[in-house]
Amino acid sequence: MSLSQAQIDEYQAFASRLADAAASAIEPYFRRPLDVTDKGAAGYDPVTIADQAAERAMRELILAEYPQHGILGEEEEAVVGTSPLTWVLDPIDGTRSFITGIPLWGTLIALNDGTRPVLGVMNQPYTGERFSGSPAGAWLNGQPLKARRCESLSQARLMCTSTEIFSEPAQLDAFRQIADEAQLVRFGGDCYAYCMIATGLVDVVIEASLKPYDVQALMPIVEGAGGRMTAWDGSSAQHGGAIIACGDPELHALLVERLTPFASR
Amino acid sequence: MSLSQAQIDEYQAFASRLADAAASAIEPYFRRPLDVTDKGAAGYDPVTIADQAAERAMRELILAEYPQHGILGEEEEAVVGTSPLTWVLDPIDGTRSFITGIPLWGTLIALNDGTRPVLGVMNQPYTGERFSGSPAGAWLNGQPLKARRCESLSQARLMCTSTEIFSEPAQLDAFRQIADEAQLVRFGGDCYAYCMIATGLVDVVIEASLKPYDVQALMPIVEGAGGRMTAWDGSSAQHGGAIIACGDPELHALLVERLTPFASR
Repeated sequence: MSLSQAQIDEYQAFASRLADAAASAIEPYFRRPLDVTDKGAAGYDPVTIADQAAERAMRELILAEYPQHGILGEEEEAVVGTSPLTWVLDPIDGTRSFITGIPLWGTLIALNDGTRPVLGVMNQPYTGERFSGSPAGAWLNGQPLKARRCESLSQARLMCTSTEIFSEPAQLDAFRQIADEAQLVRFGGDCYAYCMIATGLVDVVIEASLKPYDVQALMPIVEGAGGRMTAWDGSSAQHGGAIIACGDPELHALLVERLTPFASR
Repeated sequence: MSLSQAQIDEYQAFASRLADAAASAIEPYFRRPLDVTDKGAAGYDPVTIADQAAERAMRELILAEYPQHGILGEEEEAVVGTSPLTWVLDPIDGTRSFITGIPLWGTLIALNDGTRPVLGVMNQPYTGERFSGSPAGAWLNGQPLKARRCESLSQARLMCTSTEIFSEPAQLDAFRQIADEAQLVRFGGDCYAYCMIATGLVDVVIEASLKPYDVQALMPIVEGAGGRMTAWDGSSAQHGGAIIACGDPELHALLVERLTPFASR
């Protein structure tokens, strides 16, 4: 489904309302004692009251405004719409950041047109930063963003939330070999790291084991700033799994070549 | 040298002036293209114009106000004072955070009375957070902070900037064994992680290869909030090296027992 610029503007404004609603639901819980429960069978995957309240608030707005749209969120069942448009929501991406008080988590909101995410928002209410992206560009609080050129891995700043996300040893090895060649490696980024690609301060993010709602909002931000974000084999990132994002499309092509053999999800 | 509460109050207010001066010097450079040079022979240790300008601004204030005090800073030669009091400065702790745009770096300011740091400030101007500590307590922007109880490692949230800081394999192994038993491990904290202990959101930080100016400002903050921060063998943290900080003194004692055999710097 192809959207006009007027439709994208309308949905971009609506995504901002969603971000505001999520921020209001989350704010009372950040840096306060939380009832953190372990929802994962393997590993630690905290889910918070704030997460659930924020997704509920966003779903209610969507159901009221666009009942024909689909909804895919982290916390509740998917809603299949009568329109090809689907809102893809992660109320708190970076729950580990959230519960340790680190302001690198974000509310992720994407609109998928049935073929790909066409707009995305990453909202970090504690720092007051709202990143957004669409085919027309990428912005931080309304200021345009531009990724930087970085053709060589030896000059690249690489980020990754944690090496724990590489569940397959071959994927971890592939990551480590690239990390060893990078100029600088920094862990602990969550969604914030992808937004730093859009600002031109980070060159590469390599991760794995991601869900569709972890990535779809970030794709229009990275690509709107001139970067590339795909699966390790170069196919669309929208289904999650093993993901690579680069500010420089040439460096992206080089790294996809190296990562393709390890791209299984 | 024992300081009165009135003296501590005076120096605390002066430390705030130092933090303001550093913030003004640094602000033009955060999230802007930087002239990053590699000052380390082994590994990547970026130093920025901002770092140098901020230390200069702080040194000038100290020399004007307290010419009898010593100064130990990251960027310039140490100044030996005629007083036992020494200001210990790290204008930008977390240079990797800084150059990648991540707001977890901080300006660290400590006052050492000749035996130990008696007050500390960690200033993060982008988020507008000023952490401070003294024997009377710890504060974030004037609000008192309290570390939380966490007697068991299995309930603990552990932070560490990067496993790269463990230069000895035995230290890395010791860290990994503890990390495997923790409830949650989060990388990429720099000075911010220690401040999260003071807020009661993080339980343990374990690091190594730290310098005196990396730790002295953080000790009064962690300990003012009720936590403990020492070398791995339980001796004073003020000389840097391998450091452990805990919100709960009982958990600290347990972990010092495990880390003592690996405490060599």
